[in-house]
Formats: sequence, structure tokens, C-alpha cells
Amino acid sequence: MRVGVFDSGLGGFTVLKSLVDHRCFDEIVYFGDTARVPYGSKDRNTVVRYALEALEFFENHDLDLLIVACNTVSVVGLEAMQEMASYPVVGVVEPGVQALAASLPDKQGRVLVLGTASTVRSAAYQHQLAEQGYHHVDACAPALLVSLVEEGLFDGPVMAATLDHYFSGLTRPDAIILACTHFPHIAPAIRRYFGNVLLVHSGEAIVSWLRRRGYLSDTVCDTRVRFYASENAHRVQTLGAQFIAS
Amino acid sequence: MRVGVFDSGLGGFTVLKSLVDHRCFDEIVYFGDTARVPYGSKDRNTVVRYALEALEFFENHDLDLLIVACNTVSVVGLEAMQEMASYPVVGVVEPGVQALAASLPDKQGRVLVLGTASTVRSAAYQHQLAEQGYHHVDACAPALLVSLVEEGLFDGPVMAATLDHYFSGLTRPDAIILACTHFPHIAPAIRRYFGNVLLVHSGEAIVSWLRRRGYLSDTVCDTRVRFYASENAHRVQTLGAQFIAS
Repeated sequence: MRVGVFDSGLGGFTVLKSLVDHRCFDEIVYFGDTARVPYGSKDRNTVVRYALEALEFFENHDLDLLIVACNTVSVVGLEAMQEMASYPVVGVVEPGVQALAASLPDKQGRVLVLGTASTVRSAAYQHQLAEQGYHHVDACAPALLVSLVEEGLFDGPVMAATLDHYFSGLTRPDAIILACTHFPHIAPAIRRYFGNVLLVHSGEAIVSWLRRRGYLSDTVCDTRVRFYASENAHRVQTLGAQFIAS
Repeated sequence: MRVGVFDSGLGGFTVLKSLVDHRCFDEIVYFGDTARVPYGSKDRNTVVRYALEALEFFENHDLDLLIVACNTVSVVGLEAMQEMASYPVVGVVEPGVQALAASLPDKQGRVLVLGTASTVRSAAYQHQLAEQGYHHVDACAPALLVSLVEEGLFDGPVMAATLDHYFSGLTRPDAIILACTHFPHIAPAIRRYFGNVLLVHSGEAIVSWLRRRGYLSDTVCDTRVRFYASENAHRVQTLGAQFIAS
């Protein structure tokens, strides 16, 4: 099966790594729109346009399935992509909410959604959580945490001050949906801040979802990954190969 | 005189405000490439392409002069723009270095250049400073400070930890070139951190430079500003009008 993974930049590596680690598919084509990253602070219309342009990129790749790793695109552009594409296009929102429901059976539990400004503003996660019966839901767009990940600062005094800045006013959650591809990198810091808390990772969530939907064969296979990017493709290839081998 | 101001996003407001405050020109056309901001972490080729596309935007505006407010474009894309444009295109590097030289006559003084990764890597400021006889020059790309400005966090514990993260290893400078349009917003925090230090602001620097080059008439005038952006032009208009009135 040849599967595309689309992200606004390099953040989608965290989802890609789950797919590779679980030996889900024989071939993955990764495309990161590095020339226009980030999407999370941009307009709905702009993100939809970029998402549809990504479909044009994938046109020559003869996909069986496209996975949208980027949460911002998953909440803002998924429907438009599904209408245009001739193959299934899946995002990370529904898998994330289902993974949360599987790990937090108590509907009175408190859930925190951490995403970009677009993701939080769209309220896509909040709506789906409400439909599942979760009504104690907070949402927060800790933009600086994205920048900290990009600077490679996964810990230390700046991280501590930043976590405190965003989280000190919140009631302690029982579970957190890491609704931005960058946040799995700082899962340890988030866990240390909140203590015993469930974390939902988009990559792991989508693997479970694909398995339930019958997208994964029982025969495991090594995955050949090809990397493409709208700028600096060589660097993306190098960093991506390092990351999935890590 | 009708003058264009080009920036990757909203950061150029700090330069625009200096031009408006000094009542330099009767008409300014501001264009921010908000759909693709930021430029500072992107490739040289990508930034040059975006800079040339900005010239296409300005084609219908019958400019007498174009000011590139963005430091990243000023160091990476200025020459390409100057070759293509039929009117003068000026950047902020030479004005910044000249303003520094005017305020720090002691060539033994220590200078710190604060810019984006692209600006620092290009070494454009460092080269021009060396040509002026300054040889004690540090350069630093404090990416998180850009994010802090965008989050409106000009002060407080996250700012303190971030300043410490980037600056604690540096020898105290005598002068700092704020080589990114975002940094004038946090001039007070930077000044508090380093104590008595000269700060060079691109907006003020370019006003002096334009005056010396005879671009400014002696008759002051109120400036009509029109705002354009590659996304969310209405918001850019509102924020821009607020900022220049502040």
C-alpha cells in the first residue's frame, strides 16, 4: 500500500515515526510544506488553499491513502481535501478523540486539548469530545511551546517558565490530547508538570484507528519512505531519516 | 512621494511607524506577506523568490521608492530586487550599520547583532561592521524572542528566562543592532537585561539614512497609509492603523 503523509513542515515526523515503527505500510511518501510553515497561526482560507495545493503535489504519486498529520489542516482543510481527492484522506482529530475515549472511560474526567491557535479556535476537538460525552474540556494554544520544540529546548528554565505561563491557571487535567505534531517531543516535560496524566499522541492514535478500520494488513513490512518538501528537500530527507531511525 | 514598505508580515510596522512619525512621505503602501510569514527560518532561494513576488505585487502601485523593512529580505533578497525593480529599493542593513557607527564612535566597542537565523547566518551585518572597523562583534539568533513578541509577552518570567538563555554566555555589548523588526517591541526588556547599552532601531536608522540621501523633503506632511497583505488584509489594516496611532 502506498500512503501519503502530509504536514505543514517537519512536525509530522512524529506521526510518520509511529507508522514506520508499527510497520504499517510498504511505502510512504512524506510531503512537508516547509516553504510556508507554520500553518497554525494562519487564516482558514489560506490553510484550505495550501491543503488543496498539497493534493496537487500528491497527484503523481498514485496514493492508496493520504494521512494528514498536521492538526491544523485536519481541523480546517480535511473536508475540502476529501471532496477533491480520488483516494481516502484521513486526519488526526477523530483518531485522537477515539484514543482518548479508549484510555479515559470516566466521562467526568477532565480533558485538556493542546493545539495551535487555529486548531483550538476551530473547536473541532472540543465538539467531538462533547459528542463522546466529555464535558470538562479545556483548550489551550501554547504557541511558545511550538517554538521551544523548534529550538530543541525540551527542558530547562525557559521550558519551566513557559509551562507555568500557560498552565498555572488550569485545573489539573486527567488526560491531554497533544493536538499539534510538535508536542510529543515535550511529552516528558508536560508529564512532569502535571504529574500522573494520560497523554494522547496523534501518531499512536492514528495507528490504532487505521488498524480498526482495516487499513493495516496483518503481515508487517519494512517501510520505504520518500521525503519531499516545498523547500530544502535535502535537509528534510536527512532530518526525517534520522528521526525515524531514532 | 509614494513609497512602498515590504515586510514578511506585521513586524515591519515598527519601521512604518518611524516613517509616519517623522512625517517623511505623503503616501505609503504597506505589504505584508502574512500568508507565508515567517521568512527568517526559511531558505535563501525561497526568500529571494518571495521577495521577487512582492515586486509583482507592487507593480500596480507606481512607487517612487521601496523600503524593505524585513531584515531577512534585506540581507538575502535585496540585490535581486534591485536588479528587477525600475525604482530604488533600499533595505535596513546599511542604514543600521551607519546608525551604529554614528552612535558608537569607539571602534573598540563591542557590538551585538540580534537577528533571525537567516540574517545572522548571512553575516551581512558582520561584514559591514568589519568594513567600518568594528571587530568585536557577536551575533545571535534568539528565535524565541520573536515568538514572545508575537505572543505579546514583552516582560515577565518567560521573557526573563529566555533573555538569560540566549544572553548569559555573552560578553556585555556596548551597542546592539535590533536586526529583526520584532525586537524594538522588547527594547525595554533588553535594556534592563544589559543595563546601559545603545540600541539601534531599523526604523529610526532608515529615517536618518533617507534624510542624508535626500529622499525626504523639508516640508513635513501627513502620511496616508494603505495596507495590503497576502492573507487577512482586513486584520492587518486594523492592527497597522492601531500601531501607527499608538
